[in-house]
Amino acid sequence: MAVNVDDFFKQAYLDKPRDTTKNKVGSTITLINAMELPGLNTLGISLARIDYAPFGENPPHTHPRATEILTVLEGTLYVGFVTSNPNKLFAKVLNKGDVFVFPQGLIHFQFNPIHDKPAVANAALSSQNPGVITIANAVFGSKPPISDDVLAKAFQVEKGTIDWLQAQFWENNHN
Amino acid sequence: MAVNVDDFFKQAYLDKPRDTTKNKVGSTITLINAMELPGLNTLGISLARIDYAPFGENPPHTHPRATEILTVLEGTLYVGFVTSNPNKLFAKVLNKGDVFVFPQGLIHFQFNPIHDKPAVANAALSSQNPGVITIANAVFGSKPPISDDVLAKAFQVEKGTIDWLQAQFWENNHN
Amino acid sequence: MAVNVDDFFKQAYLDKPRDTTKNKVGSTITLINAMELPGLNTLGISLARIDYAPFGENPPHTHPRATEILTVLEGTLYVGFVTSNPNKLFAKVLNKGDVFVFPQGLIHFQFNPIHDKPAVANAALSSQNPGVITIANAVFGSKPPISDDVLAKAFQVEKGTIDWLQAQFWENNHN
Amino acid sequence: MAVNVDDFFKQAYLDKPRDTTKNKVGSTITLINAMELPGLNTLGISLARIDYAPFGENPPHTHPRATEILTVLEGTLYVGFVTSNPNKLFAKVLNKGDVFVFPQGLIHFQFNPIHDKPAVANAALSSQNPGVITIANAVFGSKPPISDDVLAKAFQVEKGTIDWLQAQFWENNHN
Amino acid sequence: MAVNVDDFFKQAYLDKPRDTTKNKVGSTITLINAMELPGLNTLGISLARIDYAPFGENPPHTHPRATEILTVLEGTLYVGFVTSNPNKLFAKVLNKGDVFVFPQGLIHFQFNPIHDKPAVANAALSSQNPGVITIANAVFGSKPPISDDVLAKAFQVEKGTIDWLQAQFWENNHN
Amino acid sequence: MAVNVDDFFKQAYLDKPRDTTKNKVGSTITLINAMELPGLNTLGISLARIDYAPFGENPPHTHPRATEILTVLEGTLYVGFVTSNPNKLFAKVLNKGDVFVFPQGLIHFQFNPIHDKPAVANAALSSQNPGVITIANAVFGSKPPISDDVLAKAFQVEKGTIDWLQAQFWENNHN
Repeated sequence: MAVNVDDFFKQAYLDKPRDTTKNKVGSTITLINAMELPGLNTLGISLARIDYAPFGENPPHTHPRATEILTVLEGTLYVGFVTSNPNKLFAKVLNKGDVFVFPQGLIHFQFNPIHDKPAVANAALSSQNPGVITIANAVFGSKPPISDDVLAKAFQVEKGTIDWLQAQFWENNHN
Repeated sequence: MAVNVDDFFKQAYLDKPRDTTKNKVGSTITLINAMELPGLNTLGISLARIDYAPFGENPPHTHPRATEILTVLEGTLYVGFVTSNPNKLFAKVLNKGDVFVFPQGLIHFQFNPIHDKPAVANAALSSQNPGVITIANAVFGSKPPISDDVLAKAFQVEKGTIDWLQAQFWENNHN
Repeated sequence: MAVNVDDFFKQAYLDKPRDTTKNKVGSTITLINAMELPGLNTLGISLARIDYAPFGENPPHTHPRATEILTVLEGTLYVGFVTSNPNKLFAKVLNKGDVFVFPQGLIHFQFNPIHDKPAVANAALSSQNPGVITIANAVFGSKPPISDDVLAKAFQVEKGTIDWLQAQFWENNHN
Repeated sequence: MAVNVDDFFKQAYLDKPRDTTKNKVGSTITLINAMELPGLNTLGISLARIDYAPFGENPPHTHPRATEILTVLEGTLYVGFVTSNPNKLFAKVLNKGDVFVFPQGLIHFQFNPIHDKPAVANAALSSQNPGVITIANAVFGSKPPISDDVLAKAFQVEKGTIDWLQAQFWENNHN
Repeated sequence: MAVNVDDFFKQAYLDKPRDTTKNKVGSTITLINAMELPGLNTLGISLARIDYAPFGENPPHTHPRATEILTVLEGTLYVGFVTSNPNKLFAKVLNKGDVFVFPQGLIHFQFNPIHDKPAVANAALSSQNPGVITIANAVFGSKPPISDDVLAKAFQVEKGTIDWLQAQFWENNHN
Repeated sequence: MAVNVDDFFKQAYLDKPRDTTKNKVGSTITLINAMELPGLNTLGISLARIDYAPFGENPPHTHPRATEILTVLEGTLYVGFVTSNPNKLFAKVLNKGDVFVFPQGLIHFQFNPIHDKPAVANAALSSQNPGVITIANAVFGSKPPISDDVLAKAFQVEKGTIDWLQAQFWENNHN
């Protein structure tokens, strides 16, 4: 199959605000990976626009195959990642134009701390297929669920609390 | 500095049971990575022995830089990993001699479901420095703590619950 | 030397327009690579803001170690890359919000075709040290110069034309 | 084809002793690579159980694509590898629980020096398809044979000796 | 499909002089990459013979995926490469038996400065599919052409000069 | 330390015949790796000239970190490699100008079958530090020696034969 210019082109990707009211965390990820843009195949890079509602967040997650470099396009974000051992938090409040790096495989998050203004960020990732694991969803929302014995001991809570958490609706924030 | 044979040798590593009573999760990891065994440097492999108390577990965690292949040496283990999107659980009960693979970067766990027998496993990892991120510890036990606004929304609980969790003692299970 | 949060953070990088009048091509590249942001070391990604004057351009160049994914933040850009064999041009006019991919090692360019409006783009590159070779500058502006015998035959012009070209001032457009 | 949990699981692999009387070297390799366990594909790791008869050995061999880390599960092993230039032998006698590293591509061996007890080892390899080249078999047992002119000069023996060696039965010790 | 010995063998590749009169630059490249020699697939190496007419040249070009190491088999060559930033020329006159390295992605050339003797070189490249971008051809000979606005500004010449250059015949020197 | 042009240049490397009478196998390897030519560092390629006396050979060996592509410059060579499992020989008689590939990590050899003419080859290797393990030398000539129990069983000969072999002088054929 011949390659053509549209394999390298994505129209109107970054300029349109996305709806951030469709999930409880108040954010929407729009990812351009090699499935979306075939020209990225084998080339080791992808892109994401992230829209945050006021008080919205991109909850703690990891990318198993990529480092992320994030730029704030609009608004304010409290961002951070946790190192592996010891579990030290590297966090910062970012404003428009600021840049932050989240190293490969580490748990990280972004949160819009402003109650009346949305925020927007652009993220570049060092893989054409970075993957994403939203921590709370993977742990409490897997199908089938992880045994509550395992999670009760890991999170130091009663099994009833785990059962209640697993009964919640764990939706992702991907567009 | 000249290399010698002891850079490639670790005595009495696997045969000694470890104490599994020193932490609340009831397991002890003894890792041989390139810091422990200098001959592993740049060679892309490391090893761990894992001891599980009765009802002990190696709680949900990820290795940012390695796939793991685990073999049960003694006892029984309920093990699993969660795929990234959708969050599907691949789980199995393993007995002595069984082998299981945990792909790089995915959240996984092992749990000893037998109330009166310990278990032992041997794990090989595809990096000389695989890293480990214990999910609950990184999320609720980081220093300094992640803002409870972020975690309350991510885990769908009250901020008071997050504060209570963050006040617990989050110790790791590494030897 | 201990790592700290500022190794992963760059303040006010993207929001400030740069001066595009300092060189003849009418563009200014502001690159964040691992020299600028130490936290990027070994992580395989970097970022650049590009400002274009009206009729300004980022002239034909290659990145020896990176693929680039470019997003238009403001204005209009005529962009393209040339494949290696045959020399086919893949070109497109991009508007605000559009995205385009330039595969590793291929000659590519961006040009602002609007005579009265500047343009701005954000580029992510799949290396912490992508390198850049501006074609005209490397060919005609090297120190010492390449023999005019070589260049006259390669470009199918008189040696006098090469000599004239080599006498020009070949400045780069990096901030 | 959908992936399922059995792609990551191998039952009763490690706990069963293998027959070590089927070949002249007195050892049996049972390998789990990506052909045996499809979930290992692209993940850079594999596993082998090695059974040694009394005085049995895993003869000098190389893995073209993997480093090996070996753990003694039962018995005693004299093990070693030879560096490339100069040809220095790094050797050690290992007992139950000891660990040894064989760097990628180097010639190495394990030998059970005890005349009345078998030995067992577990080996992890840093490739899902490590490959194995048993030196004597590849040199003297290839089909068709290597010219005896070549081998006589290389091994500093008469061509008649090479011819005799090539007439032997060179079987491998893989299960 | 079974592999056989002819996948690893190319007969009479290096010993035959090639015709160097078929193009204006006076050189002919005969490349053996993985398309020519299937046994090279995934193995990270390829080979080229280069014939130079008197005053012939292999004009400035890059290999997007390979470093090149060149050996002069007959004659004399003036060779060089330009570093990326600053644009420093590393050049040398080579005679029979001399070797020179052109690092990956950098613009480089070879020129036979002797008016009455041909030259021959053998080049090894660190990829089974190195690619080649002949600078003048890619810039001025692409189909369709790059806008003359872009090239006039990049090369500091009149648009009429660009148009004239684009009207020339840009043939490659590959066999 | 500043890099200069001589880091990329090796004078009179290929054109001078080497003495092939200094060792019993009748061949001399002259290698240019990154230790000889610093500009090769990290670039993934190296070069070797091989001189063969009449009836001389480059005895069976492996390169742990490189594929080799060999070109015959003068004379005739019988060459081959053995695959890993099964041990199939891929062999060919090469004449001047012929090319042959030896895949990474496999045992291979070259032999000059002509009793009254020397041969010369040029080899390119896909690593700046390919390494070489001459099989007979590593097995029988290591310091200290491998136990004769191990080698007698591996090679299906008497221990006395092994002892005799280990008492020979195992010199390498590197310049």
